[in-house]
Amino acid sequence: MVLDPPLAKPLVERLAVIGIGLIGSSILHAAKARRLAGTTVASDASEAVRTRATELGLGDEIAPSAAEAVKGADLVIICVPVGAMAAVAAEIGPYLEAGAIVSDVGSVKGAVLAALKAHIPGGAHVIPAHPVAGTEYSGPDAGFATLFQNRWCILTPPDGADEKAVAKLTEVWTAMGANVETMSAEHHDLVLAITSHVPHLIAYNIVGTAADLEAVTQSEVIKFSAGGFRDFTRIAASDPTMWRDVFLNNREAVIEVLGRFTEDLIALQRAIRWEQGDALFDLFTRTRAIRRSIIELGQETAAPDFGREHD
Amino acid sequence: MVLDPPLAKPLVERLAVIGIGLIGSSILHAAKARRLAGTTVASDASEAVRTRATELGLGDEIAPSAAEAVKGADLVIICVPVGAMAAVAAEIGPYLEAGAIVSDVGSVKGAVLAALKAHIPGGAHVIPAHPVAGTEYSGPDAGFATLFQNRWCILTPPDGADEKAVAKLTEVWTAMGANVETMSAEHHDLVLAITSHVPHLIAYNIVGTAADLEAVTQSEVIKFSAGGFRDFTRIAASDPTMWRDVFLNNREAVIEVLGRFTEDLIALQRAIRWEQGDALFDLFTRTRAIRRSIIELGQETAAPDFGREHD
Repeated sequence: MVLDPPLAKPLVERLAVIGIGLIGSSILHAAKARRLAGTTVASDASEAVRTRATELGLGDEIAPSAAEAVKGADLVIICVPVGAMAAVAAEIGPYLEAGAIVSDVGSVKGAVLAALKAHIPGGAHVIPAHPVAGTEYSGPDAGFATLFQNRWCILTPPDGADEKAVAKLTEVWTAMGANVETMSAEHHDLVLAITSHVPHLIAYNIVGTAADLEAVTQSEVIKFSAGGFRDFTRIAASDPTMWRDVFLNNREAVIEVLGRFTEDLIALQRAIRWEQGDALFDLFTRTRAIRRSIIELGQETAAPDFGREHD
Repeated sequence: MVLDPPLAKPLVERLAVIGIGLIGSSILHAAKARRLAGTTVASDASEAVRTRATELGLGDEIAPSAAEAVKGADLVIICVPVGAMAAVAAEIGPYLEAGAIVSDVGSVKGAVLAALKAHIPGGAHVIPAHPVAGTEYSGPDAGFATLFQNRWCILTPPDGADEKAVAKLTEVWTAMGANVETMSAEHHDLVLAITSHVPHLIAYNIVGTAADLEAVTQSEVIKFSAGGFRDFTRIAASDPTMWRDVFLNNREAVIEVLGRFTEDLIALQRAIRWEQGDALFDLFTRTRAIRRSIIELGQETAAPDFGREHD
């Protein structure tokens, strides 16, 4: 699957992307490839990143600050770690056009909605969003135009959100190849706790546990990682700042789901201790079916071993 | 990397492979590609599998039973689930040639060594082995010749094992592209508990937890699985019988490592509850370095997202 050709008429006049990491740079690539905006302008708090973005030709303009970037923009997408959202919103608030749509790509939606609502003036439309897509790489070099292809983007418009603004943002994400779904911020945060946040936490955790075992050397962990361990190291290589902020800002849902995970794990440990082979076999059979469903829905490759090269 | 050309002179005269699943069929493919044996003979307890193996041309001969297969073989590799090892050893014991090498590919070595020693007569050389390689697929169609390329194969010869037999088995695995390492069965079982067994268990567990959450539908789990969850579904799709047997036969090491994992996870949960962002950030940075080491050692791809297709 490849991206459709550029649109005959851009969907927005001026698109501002604040934060040029994996997601921000992918939006800029996709926006260019599909001509989503008359003009794209990007900014980043880091001067080094702004320089690199210029070298990479990301965006028609690179602005020196977020405040500068949003001037005249009819769509602003904030692509910074969740913990930096309030500061960016406070900075851009006074410079937003009346009627501008202000959205984001954060992995947590309740805390982001609160941060944006506190700082974005009433004349702008706050429509938080979360494209469920990514890789383990970060920064302006990591982005690519097809990152959102056939992935879901979840919008969490607050009660009473402007319908036209929601429709416009839906059009933009659809044009980037995403399937758009709408739900409450609260439900989003629970769904993502199980499909993303807790999986990341246990991946980080097992990699930490392995590194700290005295009886097994780090060299052994690395050499024999093809036994399964290496799969976990991919998401445990994700951006530390982004993920610290996710856990700090989705505490309740993460702790709730983690409680369920631990309860289930201890039951499994008990089944091993008491040699209850049937209980193990039943679970291991059930989980196989779930992967098949994910593959059938086009959310995963059917190639063995994720399609890793074997020769 | 591709396999080297066929050997001028086979390493063994008659290679018997008992059990034609992912590993057994991969050995047969590799043995053929590299001409490791004068003749290869394979067998499987399932008639359907034997028929399929014949259709696939796996092995020069397909024997109707394990006992038949090992007659005249100088190398026997048992590729059945760990729990079936004792029964196969008991069946083949009386039919082994004096001086034959009897090996296996099981993911647990202490229990396998005990099972083999109980049933294999003294005239044969028991040298257990474990190639740390695989995919999430099972059965005779799943194998391929390069599965073991640049992966490690761990030999766990018992005290006093015949050195020539160890050297011969090392040659065979090296010829299939593997790096060979030798250690005690006990140490193997601890190393694999952290690099393979516990990772599989927590993958099975998170997939089960997700399926059982009442507040999140199965359809949501599947749709939004690209947030990280789908990575876990790969190893949670592995063969249920094989993995049930692994946990039942490596109970002590699995429970020990699982205890460490849970302790670390609860500390992490506490750090989230008390908003200790620095502790999270430090762990998340440390784990990134471990993935880099795995990639540098050629045990993992550097391609984003395992090289999954994004377009």
